[in-house]
Amino acid sequence: MIRFVLDTSIFVNPDVRKKFGDTPTEAMRKFLEYAERLFGKVEFYVSPGIYKEIMHFVDESEVSPDIELYIIRKPPNVHDMKIPAFVVYELIEDIRRRIDKGLRVAETAVREGILEADVNKIINKLRRNYRRALREGLIDSKEDFELILLAKELDAIIVSADVGILTWAEKMGIKWVDAAKFKEILEELIEKYGR
Amino acid sequence: MIRFVLDTSIFVNPDVRKKFGDTPTEAMRKFLEYAERLFGKVEFYVSPGIYKEIMHFVDESEVSPDIELYIIRKPPNVHDMKIPAFVVYELIEDIRRRIDKGLRVAETAVREGILEADVNKIINKLRRNYRRALREGLIDSKEDFELILLAKELDAIIVSADVGILTWAEKMGIKWVDAAKFKEILEELIEKYGR
Repeated sequence: MIRFVLDTSIFVNPDVRKKFGDTPTEAMRKFLEYAERLFGKVEFYVSPGIYKEIMHFVDESEVSPDIELYIIRKPPNVHDMKIPAFVVYELIEDIRRRIDKGLRVAETAVREGILEADVNKIINKLRRNYRRALREGLIDSKEDFELILLAKELDAIIVSADVGILTWAEKMGIKWVDAAKFKEILEELIEKYGR
Repeated sequence: MIRFVLDTSIFVNPDVRKKFGDTPTEAMRKFLEYAERLFGKVEFYVSPGIYKEIMHFVDESEVSPDIELYIIRKPPNVHDMKIPAFVVYELIEDIRRRIDKGLRVAETAVREGILEADVNKIINKLRRNYRRALREGLIDSKEDFELILLAKELDAIIVSADVGILTWAEKMGIKWVDAAKFKEILEELIEKYGR
């Protein structure tokens, strides 16, 4: 049985989603058509946190109740699982560098603020640069981490377009596919498995 | 055999160090006297990163070469060890909260900067508040993490006054003693073991 663990990006990230539909709801309807045809052959999992994130964008009344059957919700077994120490070691080093960089970003904003009349312009720039320094490419939410643990536990394939998630997948020895190619993969699977 | 893993604080943090000596070098000489008397009964370990930090403050020419014998340098076996997933989960949640707080600290500094003529005053306050938000109580260096792993590997007792380290010790089920009470503990051990 092939198992996928899905990230939000398939339904939410516009660049990735557009292959499935113009809105998150349309993308979900399209995805469920594929999932139905692959039922019994391929399983699709999401962690509860990611499911909640996805359904924040999807109009539940507009999708089939079969979503409950085709998208399996499962939390990872966080209390029995273990992470290689060197992965945590690298995480701590990465965070330390980001924290230092974040302070430099903040100091620059303060100095620029003195010369710039429009404070909102400075604040917006600060937010952009701070986000880039502290969060871009970092596993920075428990939802992302749950997704990784769930894939590890199930020996499943992560479907994501998130750099932070894919970096961890590599470190943890987890299979993954680029969310941008997921539709083609599903079509190929349908061809293989018939129906 | 009782094993301790030492943090820098014993020799560097003035509040902790003062029981051993007025300077890091004096504190180290005093400590080595205790270590010598406990040789064969108690082992004192440091990870290489922590050793380097300590020796940055200690004048090596002023301490006995026996330091090599009494303070055992050992890196943790970072490639074989594992960390419970829930500890990493909590770390990621903690970091996320700190990152959000750091941005608020930075935004406040920018807004205050407009009203305050002395930019250095604002920058200094920013650094203080940012440090408190992002780093205080967090395991934020690989040296700290190595110390924890080493204690876990050796089933040793951590000697530290660092909140971040002691928090992890508790989560990881590692024994620890407060560095502020370390001198009394050593004296008690000397009483027990004679000499």
